[in-house]
Amino acid sequence: MSKGLLADVGELELIRRLAGRLGPARGVVTGIGDDAAVVRPTPDSAFDLVLTSDAVIQGTHFLPDSDPRSVGHKVAGRALSDLAAMGAEPDWALIDLSAPPDTPAAFVEAVYDGAAGLAARHGLAIVGGDTARSSDLALHIFAVGRVPAGRALLRSGAGTGDAVYVTGSLGCSIAGRHLSFEPRVREGIWLRESGIVTSAIDVSDGLARDMMHILEMSGVGAVIEQDLIPVSPAAAQAADGLSPVEHALHDGEDFELLFTLPAEEADAFDARWHAMFSLPCTRIGRITANKGNLILSGKGGSTPVPGCSHFDHFRRGDRP
Amino acid sequence: MSKGLLADVGELELIRRLAGRLGPARGVVTGIGDDAAVVRPTPDSAFDLVLTSDAVIQGTHFLPDSDPRSVGHKVAGRALSDLAAMGAEPDWALIDLSAPPDTPAAFVEAVYDGAAGLAARHGLAIVGGDTARSSDLALHIFAVGRVPAGRALLRSGAGTGDAVYVTGSLGCSIAGRHLSFEPRVREGIWLRESGIVTSAIDVSDGLARDMMHILEMSGVGAVIEQDLIPVSPAAAQAADGLSPVEHALHDGEDFELLFTLPAEEADAFDARWHAMFSLPCTRIGRITANKGNLILSGKGGSTPVPGCSHFDHFRRGDRP
Repeated sequence: MSKGLLADVGELELIRRLAGRLGPARGVVTGIGDDAAVVRPTPDSAFDLVLTSDAVIQGTHFLPDSDPRSVGHKVAGRALSDLAAMGAEPDWALIDLSAPPDTPAAFVEAVYDGAAGLAARHGLAIVGGDTARSSDLALHIFAVGRVPAGRALLRSGAGTGDAVYVTGSLGCSIAGRHLSFEPRVREGIWLRESGIVTSAIDVSDGLARDMMHILEMSGVGAVIEQDLIPVSPAAAQAADGLSPVEHALHDGEDFELLFTLPAEEADAFDARWHAMFSLPCTRIGRITANKGNLILSGKGGSTPVPGCSHFDHFRRGDRP
Repeated sequence: MSKGLLADVGELELIRRLAGRLGPARGVVTGIGDDAAVVRPTPDSAFDLVLTSDAVIQGTHFLPDSDPRSVGHKVAGRALSDLAAMGAEPDWALIDLSAPPDTPAAFVEAVYDGAAGLAARHGLAIVGGDTARSSDLALHIFAVGRVPAGRALLRSGAGTGDAVYVTGSLGCSIAGRHLSFEPRVREGIWLRESGIVTSAIDVSDGLARDMMHILEMSGVGAVIEQDLIPVSPAAAQAADGLSPVEHALHDGEDFELLFTLPAEEADAFDARWHAMFSLPCTRIGRITANKGNLILSGKGGSTPVPGCSHFDHFRRGDRP
């Protein structure tokens, strides 16, 4: 019997309810339900604005003994990764800080150094923000990027037969990479400019769950080849009862790009990617007409991906 | 002896240090130091974007028993008031929610109803946001507005001899108005369109402190006539040892507009304002060349405004 707490309702249902409270509005190309919102300043604008926000909260996204520069790196990195998933050029950001008064000023300054350093490397200018007292140490970043009008990469365009790709490697980011990842900004812009990418998302909830986001928004299914999933060194060495592939499928916070493009473009795409980037980019599966179904294919046959529920910030039992 | 905690350093010094860590950047018209940042999407853009962010945190900005719709009203209202102070038309907003899992979902939904209701009345579309677990219930709003290029109202343009105006009435907003105020969006846009306003700010830290922000950014001084300050009914009735004028000078969270314009325009301005708005707009003083000095003039003579330090979120002894 639900008591109506966030722990009962869960994050996805909460977001559905909140989204339902917001009406349609002028100049909104894509609202709630993608990595970022896409808005058009004027009907004849040559560009769309891409707007995203992300929280980085002590105890949820980092620990009290985390290196503060890495915390700042994560603050900027989360927003940059959202922009990358939309194929957007980063422009401006605001950072809100809320903190207890007994927080060392040097800690906060180092957080900003970490954020400003990564932001500057990607052309993201931090132009303001708010400071306030709170009992949690928390940072909220709001970022604005740009794409040519109508060209943002969305979750919603994957078509049957498309090839599924993922950059880098996945799993066990908690071993360190969740605080030091490199957002795939340059790659995201390049993918958008290629003109052939049909859908994209960044892997924040985990490969399985983020693949599901694409399937839901595109109205399709997918088969992922278990042996093709690129497993991170940390996941390959994990000795905690979960297989490396299970880590790669479910851990999250990899901040790699997961995307689709037409199968007939795949070979030429592979060649162009490898001429451009040293970062691995792996074809791991294909889009099917089997709407909403994510199938894992391997030596033991084909099975629905198990436990395909993302980390829920509010549900009981889900621990960050 | 400073131990280097936020409580020792204080909010203003912290902001100075953080601002110093962020370099200059492309397309930034006005960065940290005004009610909002002003950025120009392209060098030949017809409009500038106005970017602002605000926190609304339980225990700091509202209490656990505050009406949740009013909390949401304050979330949208704080951002709209910042846009109003810049003379900007509201466009889009994101709202981040962080909350403990035992928060009632109905409370959060009512917060969003309050925010969405006020936002819709002012043409601000809420297009996304982030949700996360935290021990504090906190909302962060990020809003984007627009002004014709180069026309944002800033804190920095007040000139010697200018008349000083404030809308509405001031003081004791804690009695209720801090959760139900009407952001002066229409008035702010009208002031910007008048073409004669030389500086503007919204009264969030209190009349005295916000006047000081204009003086600092404009490199001028001011004399305020004590008997002309419009005192709110709640401040007029306060029986707590502070005078109504002291409340009006220092309480803050009034979210009225404080602005300046050339003295020779004042009479014509008064007539046009009263033809346009029923909201009071009071001429309370004048800008002087006495750089950085805010003088209160009254029956007892002229004195520097006492205790002209704003509520500091971090310093010891300052209680929200």
